[in-house]
Amino acid sequence: RINGQRLWGSLMEMAKIGATPKGGVCRLALTDLDRQGRDLFVSWAKDAGCTISIDQMGNVFARRAGRNESALPVMTGSHADSQPTGGRFDGIYGVLGGLEVIRTLNDHGITTEHPIEVVIWTNEEGSRFAPAMVASGVFAGVFTLEYGLSRADVDGKTMGEELERIGYAGNIPCGGRPIHAAFELHIEQGPILEAENITIGVVTAAQGQRWYEVVFTGQESHAGPTPMPRRRDALLGAARAIQLVNRIGLAHAPYACATVGMLQVHPNSRNVIPGQVFFTVDIRHPEDAVLAKMDAELRAGIATIAAEQRLDVSKLEQIFYYAPVPFDADCVASVRAAAQRFGYSHRDIVSGAGHDACYLAKVAPTSMVFVPCVDGISHNEVEDATPEWIEAGGNVLLHAMLERAQE
Amino acid sequence: RINGQRLWGSLMEMAKIGATPKGGVCRLALTDLDRQGRDLFVSWAKDAGCTISIDQMGNVFARRAGRNESALPVMTGSHADSQPTGGRFDGIYGVLGGLEVIRTLNDHGITTEHPIEVVIWTNEEGSRFAPAMVASGVFAGVFTLEYGLSRADVDGKTMGEELERIGYAGNIPCGGRPIHAAFELHIEQGPILEAENITIGVVTAAQGQRWYEVVFTGQESHAGPTPMPRRRDALLGAARAIQLVNRIGLAHAPYACATVGMLQVHPNSRNVIPGQVFFTVDIRHPEDAVLAKMDAELRAGIATIAAEQRLDVSKLEQIFYYAPVPFDADCVASVRAAAQRFGYSHRDIVSGAGHDACYLAKVAPTSMVFVPCVDGISHNEVEDATPEWIEAGGNVLLHAMLERAQE
Ligand SMILES: NC(=O)NCCC(=O)O
Ligand SMILES: NC(=O)NCCC(=O)O
Repeated sequence: RINGQRLWGSLMEMAKIGATPKGGVCRLALTDLDRQGRDLFVSWAKDAGCTISIDQMGNVFARRAGRNESALPVMTGSHADSQPTGGRFDGIYGVLGGLEVIRTLNDHGITTEHPIEVVIWTNEEGSRFAPAMVASGVFAGVFTLEYGLSRADVDGKTMGEELERIGYAGNIPCGGRPIHAAFELHIEQGPILEAENITIGVVTAAQGQRWYEVVFTGQESHAGPTPMPRRRDALLGAARAIQLVNRIGLAHAPYACATVGMLQVHPNSRNVIPGQVFFTVDIRHPEDAVLAKMDAELRAGIATIAAEQRLDVSKLEQIFYYAPVPFDADCVASVRAAAQRFGYSHRDIVSGAGHDACYLAKVAPTSMVFVPCVDGISHNEVEDATPEWIEAGGNVLLHAMLERAQE
Repeated sequence: RINGQRLWGSLMEMAKIGATPKGGVCRLALTDLDRQGRDLFVSWAKDAGCTISIDQMGNVFARRAGRNESALPVMTGSHADSQPTGGRFDGIYGVLGGLEVIRTLNDHGITTEHPIEVVIWTNEEGSRFAPAMVASGVFAGVFTLEYGLSRADVDGKTMGEELERIGYAGNIPCGGRPIHAAFELHIEQGPILEAENITIGVVTAAQGQRWYEVVFTGQESHAGPTPMPRRRDALLGAARAIQLVNRIGLAHAPYACATVGMLQVHPNSRNVIPGQVFFTVDIRHPEDAVLAKMDAELRAGIATIAAEQRLDVSKLEQIFYYAPVPFDADCVASVRAAAQRFGYSHRDIVSGAGHDACYLAKVAPTSMVFVPCVDGISHNEVEDATPEWIEAGGNVLLHAMLERAQE
């Protein structure tokens, strides 16, 4: 059994870095606060006897030696970055849960056959730098290194520059090495487990997603003397697009999700009819065929709106796509068995969010462990979980990993 | 007759300050560029023999002595600030048109009975600091000095601080002094004159307007695992509000205008359901009773949307209101007579935009002269006017002012 209090304490200590007034965390990828969080993890991992290595995407690997050092590693981990108004558990729970596994093995003097690695994956959130899971994507060969390093934030700063700046631009190659098995521990970020009063989610798959960037261009003009019929109001077009996206989500109930999360108005002046609007679209579904249908509906709808509002579609680009991800049956079985061993209530579940495990699954047998979060709320400063859930997830991770690390 | 070439040259010289790549101007109120524009005007006005004084709101008065220095001044002027993507004529034409009147009087050695004053009114656009026409409003006693100096931009910098910073915080009292007559020369900023091939708009009134700030609050949550029916998406509410505002504008055709020009999403992250959205509303109509009806429709519509989308209306505040403004019949007659004297095609027109003249009209007999602008476009970098229109407006201003300055 892991030490639940120690894990909780480490989470609360880490949550001080980037703490927000409402009890959450703002630790955007590759900021000074992200560096502080990484530094703290590295110092803890070194104290636990791990060796640290950093790859070209800034992914941090803390390795605990195995009895057989030529055996492939069993990997776990998640991310340390957060949303602008993020919570104390999203991502970092999977990192510190992995560290707690190592600390527990140390407590009991257990040497595993396989080495164990705990990873921080760079920029999972996709908030400061789009898309999400960039660095685990490079690790898995989905993106090139050049693509990963060149992702830029709204100010034009690239991941490559920012990795250099915070001192986490490593030189070992990103990816291209075999892994025995991988697990990721995470809060559910949705309402299912809590609603059913279940402690452990055995994650069998993750739904697919597509992200888009859209730009409508109309014509800036004075809000006073410009008659309504002459207007080419880009924000009015965007307003219709936001409702279109919502209708697409509702039309493919109950599993589809569709969201406009980001929108920027130009010139954004009270008495100017907006001339240009940039916005993002995020659509998700567990079935790839439905996701493709949603894509077609989005494209058709945007074209109709642009024509009716006399706007130009200056951009309609899918910047991120992955098909629904099935996790490895053996790894899923290890998670289920571990939950059963402790007598935790559990159920199979499909992840609504994307996770580094989704990319890792392309190059290693992978699965995930979910625990509930309060009211199903995540990507919000009020995100919360009970110490009991946090401990239970750690125990399941420990035993799932042990099973694979000893074979 | 004024010197049309000289006026055009001065406009083009001034347009270099804050020039944008698309041929427009970005000279936001109380920035360093605004200071440069003011400095240039002051140096030109001094060269033309004027004395300069600056009041507590940073309004700049360039005074040409009259034969009778105890006679009340005849005033003209407009503003030197621009929209973020503004044009080369909006505002500054009225300032440099006034300067051209003085230069022309100098050329002909004419001394007027009344002194003449050419004014730059601070922050007319209301873009960096809301609302519009703040400083002419303080001059006219509509706003207190404290209110004016405390208006803040999105970074929290106040007009008072920024006036100090750029060296235009004067110490003469703002307003409270009588004026013999006032005229403001401006481009129409709408399509009417150009469409009818008319050179001079004799401005008889300005439509009323109301500005609002609205904040919808929902709940931030993850765009992936949060089922559609659980969402409290503040941006979806704002999208409906944008369409509501547009419908209100269309419902009171042909004179009503209704615009959402500014909108800010929080936390504005691609995979976060927006938790809060701030947006502005600008509604206008030439009849106060209709404007009141539009106000009621807006308030009722916002309440309905909030209830249906399960959002809180954290703010719904009217931050700016003035009733339709009738201009002074004698001043209007002076403008019409001047247009007739030159044989310019002209028509009576109601201003769709607000102008410093609208506030000045509360404390002085006031009217305005409009000239067309190309395609009726303003608040846009492509804003344009022909040298012929610019010259014609200057001639009308000269003769309207002369008529009142010699009585
Ligand atoms: N787990 C998580 O919040 N990932 C961010 C990527 C996504 O939006 O699914
Ligand atoms: N003339 C002008 O653009 N004024 C700004 C105030 C308004 O929006 O009417």
